[in-house]
Amino acid sequence: MTDTVVSSASRETVIGFERPFVIIGERINPTGRKVLAEEMKLGDFSRVEADALAQAEAGAHMLDVNAGIPLADEPALLAKVVRQVQSLTDLPLSIDSSIVGALEAGLAVYQGKALVNSVTGEEDRLERVLPLVAKHGAAVVAITNDETGISQDPDVRFEVAVKILNRAADHGIPKSDVVIDPLVMPIGAMGTAGQQAFHLVRRLRSELGVNTTCGASNVSFGLPNRNGINGAFLAMMIASGLTSAITNPLHTEIKQAVMACDVLTGQDRNSARWIAAHRDPSTPGRNRRRRKRSNEARPE
Amino acid sequence: MTDTVVSSASRETVIGFERPFVIIGERINPTGRKVLAEEMKLGDFSRVEADALAQAEAGAHMLDVNAGIPLADEPALLAKVVRQVQSLTDLPLSIDSSIVGALEAGLAVYQGKALVNSVTGEEDRLERVLPLVAKHGAAVVAITNDETGISQDPDVRFEVAVKILNRAADHGIPKSDVVIDPLVMPIGAMGTAGQQAFHLVRRLRSELGVNTTCGASNVSFGLPNRNGINGAFLAMMIASGLTSAITNPLHTEIKQAVMACDVLTGQDRNSARWIAAHRDPSTPGRNRRRRKRSNEARPE
Repeated sequence: MTDTVVSSASRETVIGFERPFVIIGERINPTGRKVLAEEMKLGDFSRVEADALAQAEAGAHMLDVNAGIPLADEPALLAKVVRQVQSLTDLPLSIDSSIVGALEAGLAVYQGKALVNSVTGEEDRLERVLPLVAKHGAAVVAITNDETGISQDPDVRFEVAVKILNRAADHGIPKSDVVIDPLVMPIGAMGTAGQQAFHLVRRLRSELGVNTTCGASNVSFGLPNRNGINGAFLAMMIASGLTSAITNPLHTEIKQAVMACDVLTGQDRNSARWIAAHRDPSTPGRNRRRRKRSNEARPE
Repeated sequence: MTDTVVSSASRETVIGFERPFVIIGERINPTGRKVLAEEMKLGDFSRVEADALAQAEAGAHMLDVNAGIPLADEPALLAKVVRQVQSLTDLPLSIDSSIVGALEAGLAVYQGKALVNSVTGEEDRLERVLPLVAKHGAAVVAITNDETGISQDPDVRFEVAVKILNRAADHGIPKSDVVIDPLVMPIGAMGTAGQQAFHLVRRLRSELGVNTTCGASNVSFGLPNRNGINGAFLAMMIASGLTSAITNPLHTEIKQAVMACDVLTGQDRNSARWIAAHRDPSTPGRNRRRRKRSNEARPE
C-alpha cells in the first residue's frame, strides 16, 4: 500500500489506496480566468482568498495554486499566493507552474511538505525539477509525456511513468512521493480517451503500485453537461484505481460522485460522512434527496 | 467478445462488451408496491402499461416483468402481463419469477427470445429452469448463490457462476446466453460490498468472458440520497466490466450515469446520443446544464 503524505504547517493529507479519495481544488488558477488574472497581477488576492475558503468549505483535501499569468513575474507572484493561501487555510498545497523558477520560489516560502505540480518525462524538466523536489523533501506530480509529446498509446505513457520513477529514485525521491498523471484527453477529440485512461490507471496501480492524479475535467471538453460526464468519469477512474484528482469540489456532481465512491470503496466507514452530509441542509444533493423521498411515498 | 442477443417479435437488444450498456427497466414489479399489486390482482393493468411506456420513453433497452403477488395465480397473471406489455412496446422482456411454473407460462406466450430471470446454483433450480430456457431458446440470468446461500466470499460466488455455466452447457445453452448476476449486497450492511462486486465483475468478464447484470439499487439500501450512490455505483461497475443492469431509467442520476459511461467507454460514437439528448429540453440534466452554463460565464 503506497501512501503519499503531504502537509501544511499543521495538517497532513494522505493520498493512498486504502484512503478516502483526495480532491485537489483546481480553482486558484488564472488560466482562462481573465478577471482573476487581472486582479492577481495588481496584487489583489480577494478572489484567490474566496476561492481558497470556498473550496476548503466544499471539502477539498488540498488546493492547487497556480499563478501563470503572461508577462507577470510568476515566481514572485506564486510565492505571494502560496503565503496568502497558507495564512487562510491549513490544507496542504499543490504548487503548480510550468516555470521551474516559480516552483522554486513557491517551495522556498511553503510551510510543510508540498506537492510540486509538475515534472514530465522531458530530460530538461527531469534534471531541473527533481533536484528541487529532493532538496525540499516534497512530493511531485509526474505527467506522462516526454520530448516526443503525448503518446496516443497508453502503454508508451506507462513507460514514461517508469522512466520518471527511475529518475526520481536516482535523486533519492521514493516512488511514494511521485503521483502519476496518466494524461486524460478530451473524449470529444479521441473516442478511446476514456478506455485509455482506465487501462493506464489500472496498470499504474497494479504493476507500479503508485498513486495517481488527473485533471478530471479535460475529458468532457467541448461536450454539453460537462459535470455529468466528469462525475461519471471520476467514478470510473476511481474504480480503476485513481487515488486523487485536480478538480472543482464546488460542482455538485463532482463532490457527490467522490463522496459516493468513498462509500462504495469502503473508505467512508459505515457511510458516516455520507450520512452526516445528508443531515446538513446546505449539502449538495440534500434537496434532491428530499424530492426523491416524497416520490418514494409511492412504494417501489 | 460475447454478445447476448434477446428479442421481441420485431426488435433485438444486444448485451455485450462492445455495445452500449443495457438498462433493463425494473418498474413492472409488484414487490413492495401495494397499489400496483392490488390493481394487478384485479386485472387492472393500467399502471403496468404506464410503467412500460414511461420506461421505454426514458430509454430502457429491455423491460423486466414480474407478477409475484402472494395468493395470486402467478403463472396466469405473468402470462397476461407479458402479453399486455408486448402489445404496447417492442422492447425485449426479462421474464421474472421465482416460480418455475410462472416462467413457463410467461415463456409460452412470449414472442421473440426472452431473458429468463432467473436461475441460481441450487440443484433443483438448475434442473427445472435450464431445460425450460433450452426448450424456448431463451437467455437466462444466473444468480450466484446456491443451496448454502449467498457466500460472503466473492470468489465462492465466482465458482457458483462456473457451475451454472457448465450445467447450462450440458443443456445446450451457450455461455453467450447466460448473463451472470454477481449479487450486490447493501453497502450499509457490509462495507466491502462495493469492492466485492467490482472484483467479481472483473473476474467474470476477464476470466469467463460472460455478460453480467445486477439489481443496481440494492447497494444503497438504507442510505440517504440513494440515487447519488446508485449512479456512482453503476459507473464503477461499468468501469469494472458490467454490461447490463436491472434498474430504473426514470431516475435522472441512473440514466445520466449510464449515458455518460457510454460516452466514456466509446460506445456512444462521437458522443452523438449524449449531444442529442442535451438538445432536447425534456432531457434530465438539461436544466442543470443551463444553470452551469451561466455559472461558466465567469470563466474557469
